Amino acid sequence: MARNGFNNNLKVLAFDVFGTVVDWHGSVMREVSELNLNVEPAEFARRWRAGYAPAMARVASGELNWMKLDDLHEIILREVLEEFKIDSLSEAKIQHLNRCWHRLTPWPDSAEGLSLLKQDYIICTLSNGNIGLLTNMAKAGHLPWDCILSSEVFRHYKPHPQTYLGVARVFDVAPSEVMLVAAHNNDLAAARSCGLKTAYVERRFEFGVDQEKDVSPCEKNDVHAIDFIELANILTKSN
Amino acid sequence: MARNGFNNNLKVLAFDVFGTVVDWHGSVMREVSELNLNVEPAEFARRWRAGYAPAMARVASGELNWMKLDDLHEIILREVLEEFKIDSLSEAKIQHLNRCWHRLTPWPDSAEGLSLLKQDYIICTLSNGNIGLLTNMAKAGHLPWDCILSSEVFRHYKPHPQTYLGVARVFDVAPSEVMLVAAHNNDLAAARSCGLKTAYVERRFEFGVDQEKDVSPCEKNDVHAIDFIELANILTKSN
Repeated sequence: MARNGFNNNLKVLAFDVFGTVVDWHGSVMREVSELNLNVEPAEFARRWRAGYAPAMARVASGELNWMKLDDLHEIILREVLEEFKIDSLSEAKIQHLNRCWHRLTPWPDSAEGLSLLKQDYIICTLSNGNIGLLTNMAKAGHLPWDCILSSEVFRHYKPHPQTYLGVARVFDVAPSEVMLVAAHNNDLAAARSCGLKTAYVERRFEFGVDQEKDVSPCEKNDVHAIDFIELANILTKSN
Repeated sequence: MARNGFNNNLKVLAFDVFGTVVDWHGSVMREVSELNLNVEPAEFARRWRAGYAPAMARVASGELNWMKLDDLHEIILREVLEEFKIDSLSEAKIQHLNRCWHRLTPWPDSAEGLSLLKQDYIICTLSNGNIGLLTNMAKAGHLPWDCILSSEVFRHYKPHPQTYLGVARVFDVAPSEVMLVAAHNNDLAAARSCGLKTAYVERRFEFGVDQEKDVSPCEKNDVHAIDFIELANILTKSN
């Protein structure tokens, strides 16, 4: 599904990362499993991730000072450990587990799809993850970003307009020359309201293989694709 | 020249860019030549670059509001055009010329040397160039940065300590785990005073083939190398 001419002037593809480029659920679950805690790893992963939006909302409201995602992740992790009554982890193991977000595994098509898209566009991250996290992840997962942009650069978390508009400003292009690629319609809607183009990528099993999510096309998006390879085919064909 | 054990804990190599990674003088001179202006291109390039430090000092002092280097370059360019009494350039040509800094050519060893260094270290820019400029330059010159860091991220120009310390903070490492690589001893001295390791790279003809510069080793630097290939050899050997 692609609208005619939507990408005539497209110059920059900005990617949401958690869930869109990498499989956070499978990766966090694997690391939790290896710790042999008395807990269901899939559930632990979902609970940790569920703390993410409320924690960022506390920063957006000013209740918490600006801090990078590593620090928010740690606050949430300690809450989750308490909730699950886990007190067997050493401080070093907690710190290591907290950085599992730096080690998330890309979806099988991510590196190849990004390499294809990189031939025609500037490809960058636009993630709430901090720069160090995204850099470590890219290095381990061979993600060939032209540039790593993050809420840490703009000092605002998505969906603050300054993040989406910030991409356009960094590259000195119009908002309509930037496309956000994401597996989440709320992120895409916020980008669209700032004038960006939008591409939805299905990540059907983002929350685990037993929690298939609704990936029905939303007609407001310019593109709907199964994965990054299909996205590259669509953007190349309609060029 | 390398000190024993200086890189035991080295994790991040941060590179100055103009002059260190790319040949600004040769590149600007070439673009000016192609415009057939009534001016000596080598001299024009040096004069434009000479306006750089004073312009940044005006931002550091607060006389000018923070602005990205593209905008400072444009202010200086208009001064230089006036000084050389050039009024034949259209507005579009001035804008295009101003962006010649996005198109600077890497030194012959840069891409290969960076690829070698990338195997063992996080490699990032630490440049006063803006993010868009550095991204466009990397894409055209195949510079395989893990991450693009810029004064634009830290909202301070080098040699402000927040730029050098900002690299350590972004990657959550100690300043001594970061090495600045540069062809300029003043940049390296500022990094050293913040606790970073330093590597000087000769770029003997940075100011043109007829303006060979003094590249004598300074004993305060941890490494002195002719180019990035030698730097990779030194850092690998002493690992």
